[in-house]
Amino acid sequence: MSLLVQKYGGTSVGTVERIQAVAERVAADRARGHDMVVVVSAMSGETNRLLGLAHALHPTAPAREVDVLLATGEQVTIALLTMALEHLGCSAKSYTGGQVHIRTDNAHGRARILAIDGERVREDLANGRVVVIAGFQGMDGDGNITTLGRGGSDTTAVAMAAALKADECQIYTDVDGVYTTDPRICPQARRLAQITVEEMLELASLGAKVLQIRSVEFAGKYHVPLRVLSSFEDGPGTLITYKESKMEQALISGIAFSRDEAKLTIKGVPDKPGIAYRIVGDIAQANINLDMIIQNIGADMTTDFTFTVPHADYRQAREILQSTATALQAREVCGDERIAKISIVGVGMRSHAGIASTMFRVLGEEGINIQMISTSEIKISVVIEEKYLELAVRALHSAFGLDAENGVPG
Amino acid sequence: MSLLVQKYGGTSVGTVERIQAVAERVAADRARGHDMVVVVSAMSGETNRLLGLAHALHPTAPAREVDVLLATGEQVTIALLTMALEHLGCSAKSYTGGQVHIRTDNAHGRARILAIDGERVREDLANGRVVVIAGFQGMDGDGNITTLGRGGSDTTAVAMAAALKADECQIYTDVDGVYTTDPRICPQARRLAQITVEEMLELASLGAKVLQIRSVEFAGKYHVPLRVLSSFEDGPGTLITYKESKMEQALISGIAFSRDEAKLTIKGVPDKPGIAYRIVGDIAQANINLDMIIQNIGADMTTDFTFTVPHADYRQAREILQSTATALQAREVCGDERIAKISIVGVGMRSHAGIASTMFRVLGEEGINIQMISTSEIKISVVIEEKYLELAVRALHSAFGLDAENGVPG
Repeated sequence: MSLLVQKYGGTSVGTVERIQAVAERVAADRARGHDMVVVVSAMSGETNRLLGLAHALHPTAPAREVDVLLATGEQVTIALLTMALEHLGCSAKSYTGGQVHIRTDNAHGRARILAIDGERVREDLANGRVVVIAGFQGMDGDGNITTLGRGGSDTTAVAMAAALKADECQIYTDVDGVYTTDPRICPQARRLAQITVEEMLELASLGAKVLQIRSVEFAGKYHVPLRVLSSFEDGPGTLITYKESKMEQALISGIAFSRDEAKLTIKGVPDKPGIAYRIVGDIAQANINLDMIIQNIGADMTTDFTFTVPHADYRQAREILQSTATALQAREVCGDERIAKISIVGVGMRSHAGIASTMFRVLGEEGINIQMISTSEIKISVVIEEKYLELAVRALHSAFGLDAENGVPG
Repeated sequence: MSLLVQKYGGTSVGTVERIQAVAERVAADRARGHDMVVVVSAMSGETNRLLGLAHALHPTAPAREVDVLLATGEQVTIALLTMALEHLGCSAKSYTGGQVHIRTDNAHGRARILAIDGERVREDLANGRVVVIAGFQGMDGDGNITTLGRGGSDTTAVAMAAALKADECQIYTDVDGVYTTDPRICPQARRLAQITVEEMLELASLGAKVLQIRSVEFAGKYHVPLRVLSSFEDGPGTLITYKESKMEQALISGIAFSRDEAKLTIKGVPDKPGIAYRIVGDIAQANINLDMIIQNIGADMTTDFTFTVPHADYRQAREILQSTATALQAREVCGDERIAKISIVGVGMRSHAGIASTMFRVLGEEGINIQMISTSEIKISVVIEEKYLELAVRALHSAFGLDAENGVPG
């Protein structure tokens, strides 16, 4: 008999049939004696439909009104799911973000939760009711409707679990857990039974498909036990933990990768203080996120400077860099859009030496040249030529002992 | 420079183009210097779409959750209209029913407004903002979302106008005012420049197409000047007033009619006290509304009893009446589904004799037999054979001097 907070995303509640299926799952857990709080997103497609209407009336609609508009999406879902639960004989009650006192700041469209009053929910739970809460939304101090930004329903669920001191926060989604890598690239990919919150954060590019990073940070802050499960099939999913398990012997937990970046290099820049800021600052002012940044010490009093940017910003970043190069009298600017970034992540790195050298050896044996390297405490990232991506992921997956036995996800 | 409360129904805001047109109309009135409060309904079709989803999950969904669901309809509209106004450079702000403190009782689906706090709206108006309010919805004392029932947006507008002591409450709809009768039946029908609230109430069958009767009652109670206008064409509409105008010389203001009733008669009932209650009570218990009720004094210690019921309830009412007849040893039950009711309405009746006799003479001259007669202070209703309906309406319209000159609506 636990207190569970479950969150179902847009795909999981995308049709009346799916809402019906969620109701059955919730009612079954309730019948097992659990106290149940359910956080839901807007039905899939609804948010885009609403944004389409908004855009037709105002190309850059006021953020306050966009929030009023979008908040209706989850409000529809809470009403429908509550109806479905009641139809199953399961006593239930719906709440909007404002009604359940999810107090936020007034940053419309990307509001942060400041406080949650769980009193009303506790009363309902004590009366045997399932409480259904609209994710993604809250209310600021003046009673204005706010939204937490896309994927904010995960944050709502985690915050609610923290406020209620729930035994587990279960995020139901369209995948059945966190994998060692993307199974579409590497058929040997294996579902992880558990993963630490730090690994989850470093695996962003894998994890973002499963959980909003912000909600993971939130869960970490309040030590909310977080589990990712599939809405569509039964299974234990992946538990996100806060300490390293003695059971997990693997050196690394997962392999993330990205094709979404491009590489830019400025060569022959005068090697003097403030030069890095000058180069990075111009790009950052254009609101372009720089990811990996590497500076090589050159010979003749000049240096080379390389970084990656999102593909979508490549052309703009290159233009900015070109004018910076002219101003700095740098030798040249060159770029490459056909790169891939691969990261191996694992808390095991902390206590084991030689992980990096193993990674480089494996890539070398496959004839893959490493263009850039960047490391953190529990992650090593490399940039390679894009065409080697699948080969590299599979080779590393195997070399680090991540492959599932017989290819069956564990 | 007035304070205007304008209400736009579902058809008037049914598409982004129409919302755009409403925004232009509101912005124009604002530019004329008026303080503007705008109450809107859900986009046409939206309420039925939502009810369809609800029905798929619960054949008789809990009323509380239906209200949570339906309230999203107006919430979408307020956001979109506010965006459209802002895009026109017209400062605006949206409020849900709860946000603007429309406090109701907890009768979900048919809640009554208990109080409105106009403070927040007054502040916005003082700051030069157009205030856009979701019609049809409110919040009960426990913070639950309630709805006022279909057409409740009119009530919201009138209540808001009363709370703010607005100079006029303007109900924009798809007709351009209240007519002397239905122009589809009588091409000579004329738009009334004004009409008293009492006449409006008695003209229910005409008026209901234009205004919710409940909102007219509400307006009458607080003496809110109410005007009905068209969203789609310019014009002064019809003003609903609270005292008889000296200008209006017509004896009657309008002719209402209905084909929606059927007639039932129970003959040869013992003529003793309590018999009317016995007959009416059984029908009323089945939640069937009786309209005209007439008792004729018979000869041989028995009486005949006739009343009308909605067409849809005719069969059930007849069955109930049949068993009542058996219990009372009445002679027989007979009924007629092919009847029409015609009512002439006018405050002029109070001060002029002979209106009824004129009505009966006109019908007699057309060879139309009158089956039932019922009168009130400002209304005379008759039941006739259905096939004579159009003929009767046109003859009465002309006889009472209501015809437009050259058939042009006045």
